[in-house]
Amino acid sequence: MQRQKLLVNGERLHQELERFADFGRTENNGVTRLALSEQDRLVRNYFKSTCEELGLTVKIDDMGCMYATLAGTEQKPPIVIGSHLDTVKKGGRFDGVLGVVAGLEVVRTLVENGVKPKIPITIVNWTNEEGARFEPSMMASGVIAGKFDKATMLQKKDADGITFGDALEKIGYVGEEANRLKEATALLELHIEQGPILEKEALAIGVVECVVGMACFEIEVTGESDHAGTTPMNMRKDALFATNNLINEIRSRLGSLDEDLVFTIGRVNVYPSIHTVIPNKVVFSLEARHKDTEIVSTFKDFVQSLPHLGLDEGCDVKVTKLWERDTVWFNEEVVNHLEQSAQSLGYSNKRMVSGAGHDAQFIASLIPTAMLFVPSKNGKSHCEEELTTWEECEKGVNVLLDTTLALLSK
Amino acid sequence: MQRQKLLVNGERLHQELERFADFGRTENNGVTRLALSEQDRLVRNYFKSTCEELGLTVKIDDMGCMYATLAGTEQKPPIVIGSHLDTVKKGGRFDGVLGVVAGLEVVRTLVENGVKPKIPITIVNWTNEEGARFEPSMMASGVIAGKFDKATMLQKKDADGITFGDALEKIGYVGEEANRLKEATALLELHIEQGPILEKEALAIGVVECVVGMACFEIEVTGESDHAGTTPMNMRKDALFATNNLINEIRSRLGSLDEDLVFTIGRVNVYPSIHTVIPNKVVFSLEARHKDTEIVSTFKDFVQSLPHLGLDEGCDVKVTKLWERDTVWFNEEVVNHLEQSAQSLGYSNKRMVSGAGHDAQFIASLIPTAMLFVPSKNGKSHCEEELTTWEECEKGVNVLLDTTLALLSK
Repeated sequence: MQRQKLLVNGERLHQELERFADFGRTENNGVTRLALSEQDRLVRNYFKSTCEELGLTVKIDDMGCMYATLAGTEQKPPIVIGSHLDTVKKGGRFDGVLGVVAGLEVVRTLVENGVKPKIPITIVNWTNEEGARFEPSMMASGVIAGKFDKATMLQKKDADGITFGDALEKIGYVGEEANRLKEATALLELHIEQGPILEKEALAIGVVECVVGMACFEIEVTGESDHAGTTPMNMRKDALFATNNLINEIRSRLGSLDEDLVFTIGRVNVYPSIHTVIPNKVVFSLEARHKDTEIVSTFKDFVQSLPHLGLDEGCDVKVTKLWERDTVWFNEEVVNHLEQSAQSLGYSNKRMVSGAGHDAQFIASLIPTAMLFVPSKNGKSHCEEELTTWEECEKGVNVLLDTTLALLSK
Repeated sequence: MQRQKLLVNGERLHQELERFADFGRTENNGVTRLALSEQDRLVRNYFKSTCEELGLTVKIDDMGCMYATLAGTEQKPPIVIGSHLDTVKKGGRFDGVLGVVAGLEVVRTLVENGVKPKIPITIVNWTNEEGARFEPSMMASGVIAGKFDKATMLQKKDADGITFGDALEKIGYVGEEANRLKEATALLELHIEQGPILEKEALAIGVVECVVGMACFEIEVTGESDHAGTTPMNMRKDALFATNNLINEIRSRLGSLDEDLVFTIGRVNVYPSIHTVIPNKVVFSLEARHKDTEIVSTFKDFVQSLPHLGLDEGCDVKVTKLWERDTVWFNEEVVNHLEQSAQSLGYSNKRMVSGAGHDAQFIASLIPTAMLFVPSKNGKSHCEEELTTWEECEKGVNVLLDTTLALLSK
């Protein structure tokens, strides 16, 4: 089959993204569309009817994931394009929805150009990627990939005590387990970067090779809460000063480990947190992410060594591993396709890693998968200021279209 | 008048301290006796009736302070001995009450030995020293010394919205402004050290020369809360890392300023405190205490310089002074008396400073005042574990008695 040179309709893409943003649009032009909320129900209904008008067949699986399929001329596993339609509270207009609307625009471009694909093309909407209402994030893709137990997930509750199962039923999106995505020719997820690299390097496209592995620890430092005025410095067991020593060591050691390593001390609680009392306890999280297993291993060993480095100021230092995950490498062939498409379209691009989690990382265990990033202004996401220009979105979808055509022409 | 050599009755002192501890005794042998609570009312009633049985005259002032006076043979300003009967929540059996019961034991010893003092002896109970129910601490002594405005203090509310004025009325301890302590020969306050120095140096008595000056600041560090997984290390504005730099500088500079300086970062709040998000704000308190005005000044200048040291990691650093107080020097003559009494009794002792605040520091502006410390086990106070042995208490009261006799014999 001859590979066609088509481009998507940027204005139509723009209008559709704005139409989707109407479901839950906030005062500040962000979006609040929590998983299985009324706004999620409405956007699903809109997505479903839009797909059906285009001639697609929409199926729902038992986790509420939606699959809208343009039939192929041959009975082959589909090319799947998609992401998620839920958002965090006061999130943006791009995170997730871009990858779904991208699928719509690819199909529309094929249909209006009379392309009858030999392979079916499926647009997917994964349920509850954000985990903002029901933890964990990437819930449905995790169940489908066998990472999470379905019965447990159905019982997960939101802040009001409503279970995921009940909420899914309430919005009318309980489908059949038989409809779950089981096999596919490829899965393509277009997403905003959620980081500053593409913008900083003035690149249009990030071809994502992997979702980086990570490990997350909790470190508890226990000292003594004596009186700030009456306890000489050399008789203190100050948990904050011990923590300060540990942070120095963490920054020194991890800062020189590898330039691509990112490490964060995000959650910090100091007790009793009274200005006249020496802190007797500090509990903080420490996570690090890197694509190389060896570097993550070095990180883990280092964290476990923290209690034994003599930095404790007389305090007790306890390290607990909260969790870890291995790097998920995307399918090299699909990654190559995306890269070649970006090149052939003349878009500046680079291979990069994803530091954030995505549904694609779970689905990668079942299906040849890869992801594409487009720039995030100031690296911001999960906020109303989240911004990717329409032109940047359009370029991302053009790459998806080109790769789809390449896969169809094989 | 010939100076008599008398000693107090240690067993009686012990029994009386335990009797006072019955008012609000906790399961773990601590005491909860918040200012103007029912337990405070009961202990006041007990104190009053005990004093009256001893032949003392009890007067109450408009802030609820109690003055129990053993008449003197001459009309002279009294020797005042006392402290406070209120405690913090789950406080100990010694903080405050020791100084009041010491006064009782001194008077009892004089009475049973037939001493008819030429100068009246007054035992004082200052209202609301702790500030645990109604802020600020040292409230009544502060009003009497003109540091706090009475009308404002009467309107101070507890956590349930009850005003100090209403609570004082409810327990029946609103007295006359005319009864306030206005002049005295001397004021002696015996208190537990609330620090570890006497125990560590195996000393029986601390002769307190001053309550140290201090300054307290709030430092706010503002960065950006980016995604922990997607933001390269060199593109971060991490408020916690900036704070870490500041704490390093604080420890380095203040740690070498003077060995007697104590400095504490007690209150620390990190925002948003989520393990996957780079902290965008840290707010922390920094206080330091030292008897020398110059050293406190150097401290203050240093703190104000923190925003300009290039330690900010791209964050904004804002310094706000919360408050400061000057060192209060006690009356040299009274300090000498206490020291000589300790020496003559053969008790190991040293001159020291008080890092904590006490009613005596306010009263010192009106009356020749000094304080005496006895050891605190492990330096602990404001907790149920607070402990000073009965023998240590007895030695402190013997010093008070000896100094009282010295003042009477002048």
